[in-house]
Amino acid sequence: MPGPIVLLTDFGESDPFVGVMKGVILSRHPKARIVDLTHQIPPQDVRMGAFHLMTAAPFFPKGAIFVCVVDPGVGSQRRILWARSAEHQFLAPDNGLLSWVERREPFLELREVRNQKLFLKPVSATFHGRDVFAPVAAALAKGLSPARLGPRTRTLRRLPYPEPRSTRERIRGVVLAVDRF
Amino acid sequence: MPGPIVLLTDFGESDPFVGVMKGVILSRHPKARIVDLTHQIPPQDVRMGAFHLMTAAPFFPKGAIFVCVVDPGVGSQRRILWARSAEHQFLAPDNGLLSWVERREPFLELREVRNQKLFLKPVSATFHGRDVFAPVAAALAKGLSPARLGPRTRTLRRLPYPEPRSTRERIRGVVLAVDRF
Amino acid sequence: MPGPIVLLTDFGESDPFVGVMKGVILSRHPKARIVDLTHQIPPQDVRMGAFHLMTAAPFFPKGAIFVCVVDPGVGSQRRILWARSAEHQFLAPDNGLLSWVERREPFLELREVRNQKLFLKPVSATFHGRDVFAPVAAALAKGLSPARLGPRTRTLRRLPYPEPRSTRERIRGVVLAVDRF
Repeated sequence: MPGPIVLLTDFGESDPFVGVMKGVILSRHPKARIVDLTHQIPPQDVRMGAFHLMTAAPFFPKGAIFVCVVDPGVGSQRRILWARSAEHQFLAPDNGLLSWVERREPFLELREVRNQKLFLKPVSATFHGRDVFAPVAAALAKGLSPARLGPRTRTLRRLPYPEPRSTRERIRGVVLAVDRF
Repeated sequence: MPGPIVLLTDFGESDPFVGVMKGVILSRHPKARIVDLTHQIPPQDVRMGAFHLMTAAPFFPKGAIFVCVVDPGVGSQRRILWARSAEHQFLAPDNGLLSWVERREPFLELREVRNQKLFLKPVSATFHGRDVFAPVAAALAKGLSPARLGPRTRTLRRLPYPEPRSTRERIRGVVLAVDRF
Repeated sequence: MPGPIVLLTDFGESDPFVGVMKGVILSRHPKARIVDLTHQIPPQDVRMGAFHLMTAAPFFPKGAIFVCVVDPGVGSQRRILWARSAEHQFLAPDNGLLSWVERREPFLELREVRNQKLFLKPVSATFHGRDVFAPVAAALAKGLSPARLGPRTRTLRRLPYPEPRSTRERIRGVVLAVDRF
């Protein structure tokens, strides 16, 4: 049984963007299981997306496909990546969003998503969640061989991880997220 | 495989209204697939609901049943309509909510939803989402013949579509929605 | 067909807590059906949680398992309870959250959830939704015998229900919730 498609975006809940992505996924793969991880990443806050992905991914079932869309570079030439760890698959723009999950789940394979036959046409300049990520995730959940996504790559944009530093008298760290409690 | 039930409401996420609608749907049809399009239409903003339905519907799979509840007239004598395009079915109060989706998907059949046997009893004056729309959607998703909903009708309340107008020097239009980005 | 797992929490939508609970449930029970009742109970507002559970539960299908996490005492020695009515099962901390649903659906059996073999290890001090409630709900949805949860109990913390009182000239009551409309 293939894992669920897990959505992490900065789309919020007010606009119908997330619903439309689900429509596209279900159009391509009517039996897909879709889970919302969160859509409340602050707009374009790649670091917070990377942080939540790192902490949440290990709790999801083997085979889960994470679709991560925090994408300030949409419409530019930024690459879209697919990565695979021992447990999970990931789709994300190459902007650092996948930087930290790799600390928990090392990547075994990286590819650039370039096979336009998989995309929804015409591909818009502003909504790759709908036109690229959703149909590619649906194809993977249906069993598409990752080799058909595009060529292997070895590079990945990585954000430095802000390790806390302790001295005798204090600990210095960076606040990445503040939760509701 | 029948399509998903797609919910578009102005119920928000703070109250349990949407959850209760899903409870009713699953009580009648345990295998129903339910997708949230959005529940953040501003309360009673029929025009924004009509706009988002128009832009989102074409991305959903054939057979999807759209349950649209932005319903300032709930409890009054306003009609409840069922409409069918070549691709989708729609349930909505007859208040203009279905006005603009028809520009993308012409309706092939319109009916008035009047068969009270399908409703949850007693029907409240304020929550037709739970008492009327949810059980009717469940029945349709299970394969109910639309003829059993009620009589055909040819009328539908339509809101004028605010076409942008351009002159040599400017374009005048109406802002229907502003998104998060 | 076992009923859905219905989530009622005060976790909000901004943090990935709810998504992570779903990840755990699906890791243990890939075919689980999960429904969000609401996650917008104000933080630690047990009374509002109890109120919405009371009003919503009767609309859910027979067999539904309500997972109720409004839990100011997480990490302390408060008990976690499982309750069964004729229609539904409930998991909740013993803090009053189950007080009022019993007015609509009397409980036929109460148990203390103590079988640590069911939990996710290590159990954190702050996120029992993920480490206790989610895996226990998944086990129940897969058909675990409730006897394996822990010993029967006869006590349950109950909040007084603020019955409205009318005299000739006025009605006095308590505002438990104010909805969006």
